[in-house]
Amino acid sequence: MNAPEIRAPRGTALSCKGWPQEAALRMLMNNLDPEVAERPQDLVVYGGTGRAARSWPDYHRIVASLKSLAADETLLVQSGRAQAIFKTHEDAPRVLLANSLLVPKWATLAEHERLSALGLTMYGQMTAGSWIYIGTQGILQGTFETFAACGQTHFGGDLRGRLVVTGGLGGMGGAQPLAATMNGAAILCVEVDPQRIERRLQHKYLMRSTTDLDEALRWLDEARKAKEPLSVGLLGNCATVLPELVRRGVIPDVVTDQTSAHDELHGYVPDNMSLEAAAELRRSDPEEYVRRSVDAMGRHVAAMRAMQDKGAIAFDYGNNIRAQAVRAGVGDAFEIKGFVPLYIRPLFCEGKGPFRWAALSGDPEDIAVTDRAVLELFPHNAGLRRWIELARTQVKFQGLPARICWLGYGERERAGLLFNELVRSGKVKAPIVIGRDHLDCGSVASPNRETEGMKDGSDAIGDWPILNAMINTAAGATWVSVHHGGGVGIGYSLHAGMVVVADGSEGAARRLQRVLTTDPGMGVVRHVDAGYDEALQFAREHDVRVPGRTIFEDGR
Amino acid sequence: MNAPEIRAPRGTALSCKGWPQEAALRMLMNNLDPEVAERPQDLVVYGGTGRAARSWPDYHRIVASLKSLAADETLLVQSGRAQAIFKTHEDAPRVLLANSLLVPKWATLAEHERLSALGLTMYGQMTAGSWIYIGTQGILQGTFETFAACGQTHFGGDLRGRLVVTGGLGGMGGAQPLAATMNGAAILCVEVDPQRIERRLQHKYLMRSTTDLDEALRWLDEARKAKEPLSVGLLGNCATVLPELVRRGVIPDVVTDQTSAHDELHGYVPDNMSLEAAAELRRSDPEEYVRRSVDAMGRHVAAMRAMQDKGAIAFDYGNNIRAQAVRAGVGDAFEIKGFVPLYIRPLFCEGKGPFRWAALSGDPEDIAVTDRAVLELFPHNAGLRRWIELARTQVKFQGLPARICWLGYGERERAGLLFNELVRSGKVKAPIVIGRDHLDCGSVASPNRETEGMKDGSDAIGDWPILNAMINTAAGATWVSVHHGGGVGIGYSLHAGMVVVADGSEGAARRLQRVLTTDPGMGVVRHVDAGYDEALQFAREHDVRVPGRTIFEDGR
Ligand SMILES: NC(=O)c1ccc[n+]([C@@H]2O[C@H](COP(=O)([O-])OP(=O)(O)OC[C@H]3O[C@@H](n4cnc5c(N)ncnc54)[C@H](O)[C@@H]3O)[C@@H](O)[C@H]2O)c1
Ligand SMILES: NC(=O)c1ccc[n+]([C@@H]2O[C@H](COP(=O)([O-])OP(=O)(O)OC[C@H]3O[C@@H](n4cnc5c(N)ncnc54)[C@H](O)[C@@H]3O)[C@@H](O)[C@H]2O)c1
Repeated sequence: MNAPEIRAPRGTALSCKGWPQEAALRMLMNNLDPEVAERPQDLVVYGGTGRAARSWPDYHRIVASLKSLAADETLLVQSGRAQAIFKTHEDAPRVLLANSLLVPKWATLAEHERLSALGLTMYGQMTAGSWIYIGTQGILQGTFETFAACGQTHFGGDLRGRLVVTGGLGGMGGAQPLAATMNGAAILCVEVDPQRIERRLQHKYLMRSTTDLDEALRWLDEARKAKEPLSVGLLGNCATVLPELVRRGVIPDVVTDQTSAHDELHGYVPDNMSLEAAAELRRSDPEEYVRRSVDAMGRHVAAMRAMQDKGAIAFDYGNNIRAQAVRAGVGDAFEIKGFVPLYIRPLFCEGKGPFRWAALSGDPEDIAVTDRAVLELFPHNAGLRRWIELARTQVKFQGLPARICWLGYGERERAGLLFNELVRSGKVKAPIVIGRDHLDCGSVASPNRETEGMKDGSDAIGDWPILNAMINTAAGATWVSVHHGGGVGIGYSLHAGMVVVADGSEGAARRLQRVLTTDPGMGVVRHVDAGYDEALQFAREHDVRVPGRTIFEDGR
Repeated sequence: MNAPEIRAPRGTALSCKGWPQEAALRMLMNNLDPEVAERPQDLVVYGGTGRAARSWPDYHRIVASLKSLAADETLLVQSGRAQAIFKTHEDAPRVLLANSLLVPKWATLAEHERLSALGLTMYGQMTAGSWIYIGTQGILQGTFETFAACGQTHFGGDLRGRLVVTGGLGGMGGAQPLAATMNGAAILCVEVDPQRIERRLQHKYLMRSTTDLDEALRWLDEARKAKEPLSVGLLGNCATVLPELVRRGVIPDVVTDQTSAHDELHGYVPDNMSLEAAAELRRSDPEEYVRRSVDAMGRHVAAMRAMQDKGAIAFDYGNNIRAQAVRAGVGDAFEIKGFVPLYIRPLFCEGKGPFRWAALSGDPEDIAVTDRAVLELFPHNAGLRRWIELARTQVKFQGLPARICWLGYGERERAGLLFNELVRSGKVKAPIVIGRDHLDCGSVASPNRETEGMKDGSDAIGDWPILNAMINTAAGATWVSVHHGGGVGIGYSLHAGMVVVADGSEGAARRLQRVLTTDPGMGVVRHVDAGYDEALQFAREHDVRVPGRTIFEDGR
């Protein structure tokens, strides 16, 4: 079968028997829109192998199922294949999905690939197999949020007048310059590949570039003094440039890194050789390549540590460079802390996470309406205002117009009800679909990322994402998913997603209120249990009911 | 804190705000009743470490939570600890539980024990942590069902006039003599430990015992000829007795085994030594013990194979003796097939599995009423009739009176609605709680047992139990659980449980109808997908909607 080109229907004419089903249909299709998907012909949405359906026949059967689905029925999707339709009720989800799960003893990449090749499973990533990917805005916003939290935590505000040094302008790392300037920073991005720099300039994620360190530092110094945002891409290798900065006594306010350090052979590029020479060495003598690559990462991290010792804020951005540096003999590499425990976990303690929504009308004006509504709803949230105002001008929509911002427990419920009201009153042209990444406060167990270094040592406990999926199912989310693997790979994480539709109905208001409470509520509760005081205090203040902590405190 | 002695309240006075909550409370307490639980003081219900709650303070907080829970609220229990109460709605579950789950890469027994010691998790087994264990009746009924299916499959009826030979009268294996005689068989049970034989005689699970093989064979021969059921415990070692039977030309109709062959050091006893000598050798020279034990299993299985070659039906009963025999050089040990693919899977294809219920009144007469009602409802099910009639006289209740029998898709729904009607009309004194083991048709992924040798190779696919839990949550089960490990241990299985309460209300009827359809329906669907023709045919005949198979067959 030839791969069709998919684009979600726009407007208010329904292909399904109701908006909740229509929302699932459009978001599935939107995941495969050529503007959104990485390799739509292979059903790959993002992350190299993250699929929206197992095969094209499976895609068509899911579509047929959604079109036939009544308002009191539920479709079950097992690793991208429609497996059953059962009678449930209106307050139950319309779709339930489980993707890529394996019995733990068999949960290896090799077994997953073997079973995939047999057509028995597929990789769902996080939002690929759960039909709520919205393109690169998510990465940009996550990076924005991290830099915002960094500014808040260490500088009592934003990053204006601050110098940030980082490496890597690839798929994820390329969001750094824009996310940093959105927070007011002057940022130096060191990248060995001129094409990556070029691409980021074209997309306006990066403002300027140079091959001259002196020039870069001069520009940044001026911007810093003027408290103007500026991003500069410097063609160079981190393992050379960062030690040179230390030698010169240039100590940034913040130093981090998003080179592809997790892969010492195909990712990180050793210094003192051209890109071509590196490619050649990789082929001819991989062992020598790895030796040089790990050695370079050692010097790279040693320079980060030296900056840290001289007062810079240093953090690891999830690329495993600390462990690589330990291999190279940098014994104190883990003095640099990870971004999740430093910046994200305090947000998780308040149920804050990546709240996203899309306009099913397809009309960008509907998102503009919601943007304004959100700003009015939270007039005192300066970070949110900064993000939304910048996103309005700088984020190009991919597929159905969508927006993402981080909201917490309480806020999500209010935003959801507000959107439902916008639909009801006709201020937007069609229903709004609300979802989130699986990387959220109470929905993921991932000891190398989201649950790294939990206070009580509960990093690997896998009950939470399952409870998250079950309570969101009970509360009436429109679709709910449980996945295995996601961004960190088979064996390394369990996580759950949810989407809930605001179609302006009273039923939707009821469900939105419940789901947008249970879902972030799980984040608060999970962190109360792990011993985070902020979470406990937040739970007390917001009447989140945790037996033994905020209710039945005497143990009875 | 001293361990209190727990016994579920009886009668119609409520401790909670409604019967669904009360049912959860009573069944939790019933799991810890000294008549039911293995080590109630340690909260251990069965299986050595399977707990109902993580600790005594946790137990008390769960009880307090259940007592306070409103009819539109849901309690979350994470590995035996009450973690949150959220607002949901009446058709949502009252309790959602996730027990013992670990991120797969960390899913080892060692990590589980480390985290348990830190107080961060507990082992939930199957029905221990999901509050629906009813004592040993479950094991007896499962064994009964296996022998019944064996009779049906190979002899076109029951086992009357048939000779069965087996080994092991321990915790599980001790159910064999009664389950076999209930099916009409003459059964020889070889057991090395006289105390085990004694215990089974006392409990009336075993009719006679002897130390003399000639005597045993004479008794059995008479019974076989008279088509009378008879069970004989023979003190002896399988590795000696079975080859001797072959030598004499005594070929049984059926041969199986439930010695603890999975454990070659602490379980199986080598032949040609006394029990005391074996215990001594185990201590003094474990390597030599293992050598002799494996060697004995080789001769044991070789004899089973010889019987099989001469026409006996031979099957493995889940104790891993085939793999042990391969170690001993019996290359064709796997010519003997496992009991699940042979006897249980065909039942699973029709959504058949272990349906159980308990009388919350505590009155045995209520179970007698349901027994009669079930027999009237399925007048043509001869196996069911045989089981219920024998169970009525031979099964002693433990804790709240309960009954178990295997019912399929369609049957479960009818039975559930009937029970609800019995409650509504006052024919029973209090509500009936309906549940099942996690070992069921569509609720477990366990490549060494329930999903061994699936037709399409999907043994290790873990999506199904998660979908099962989510759809039962959506359908409105009273409580739903997802566990890891269960009967086969950490890493080896994922499984889900559900319980639904018949309190005579219309709401209950609605939920019973849905849940008792989705739950066995998952079994039908899972086996349709795996390529079982029986399942597909059954799905077609019973309108189970499977996209691509029974609906949208052209792929659209
Ligand atoms: N923070 C998170 O949540 C998160 C999420 C996903 C990925 N990551 C990690 O972040 C890293 C970057 O991800 P990506 O998708 O951008 O990878 P990528 O491979 O697309 O980009 C990496 C970039 O680093 C450059 N680079 C390599 N070695 C260099 C060196 N010595 N000096 C300067 N530049 C160098 C490469 O040319 C490339 O452009 C990866 O390790 C990834 O695993 C983190
Ligand atoms: N079919 C299933 O679903 C299922 C379920 C659970 C357990 N099992 C397996 O079944 C086996 C039995 O379980 P159990 O709980 O009864 O174990 P158990 O340890 O309580 O009993 C095993 C019995 O076998 C006897 N025995 C050992 N070696 C013998 C020999 N050579 N000859 C005769 N008797 C011998 C022991 O004295 C003991 O009484 C185990 O391997 C277990 O893993 C199967």
